Amino acid sequence: MIKLNPIGYVKNDIPEDEVSRKRSEMISEIVIDDCWADALTGIEDYSHIFVLFWMHKTGETRVEQLIHPRGDNKLPLTGVLATRVRNRPNPVGLAVAELLERKGNILTVKKLDAFHGTPVLDIKPYDDYDSIESIKVPEWWAKRCRKK
Amino acid sequence: MIKLNPIGYVKNDIPEDEVSRKRSEMISEIVIDDCWADALTGIEDYSHIFVLFWMHKTGETRVEQLIHPRGDNKLPLTGVLATRVRNRPNPVGLAVAELLERKGNILTVKKLDAFHGTPVLDIKPYDDYDSIESIKVPEWWAKRCRKK
Repeated sequence: MIKLNPIGYVKNDIPEDEVSRKRSEMISEIVIDDCWADALTGIEDYSHIFVLFWMHKTGETRVEQLIHPRGDNKLPLTGVLATRVRNRPNPVGLAVAELLERKGNILTVKKLDAFHGTPVLDIKPYDDYDSIESIKVPEWWAKRCRKK
Repeated sequence: MIKLNPIGYVKNDIPEDEVSRKRSEMISEIVIDDCWADALTGIEDYSHIFVLFWMHKTGETRVEQLIHPRGDNKLPLTGVLATRVRNRPNPVGLAVAELLERKGNILTVKKLDAFHGTPVLDIKPYDDYDSIESIKVPEWWAKRCRKK
């Protein structure tokens, strides 16, 4: 059994049912606990960060191993680890966010698809090793989700 | 307090002190617990995955907020959240790995910089939203770590 303690939380004014749709444009603040403020030193020199967060609203629902992505029965039954769905064995969320500003212990970010009040577990800088130019995704993903 | 349960572990034959240096070329297996094998269905349609893992060897050492990256005093004192160092508030590791093969509950991957025996917490597919073409990194990072 592994135990984690949040180091901060997400602050935004986007209704929860609009987060997925507004993801690309939404702006949030990440408020890091005062006691970890120094640990952000130099983060402002990166344009992008990974945010690891605890998807606290998944609740106690049983985790299904196979799901239809996006709740769409027309998409093939897919393993939960082959999707980014929230209700997964360990509901740790991961987002690549654009870092717009740091003021002390507060980061302003774009494209963080997390609900207001979400506990933050870790911030990691995004670097060259994380950026893969040529990737393969399933046909259903490319058709449904690919950026135009 | 947040509690997590590993869903598998990392298997490789690279000595721990060579993992950082051999990262780009190293091959590992991720052995997912039998009870979660179905949850991998369809992962083989992605070329790259995120692996979230528990950096179990960080031990009980006190987490320093400010460190010299790579233990090099010539590099500026930097916040631990602005580095990828293992000894951090919540020692959850994150790697983008190339998925070479899936056989049942076993994934063969390249570029996963995790020690043999590392507990795995989550697998997430890597998609277009994770690939950022133009990024900014600190000067020290670009000089020291940039891929040639």
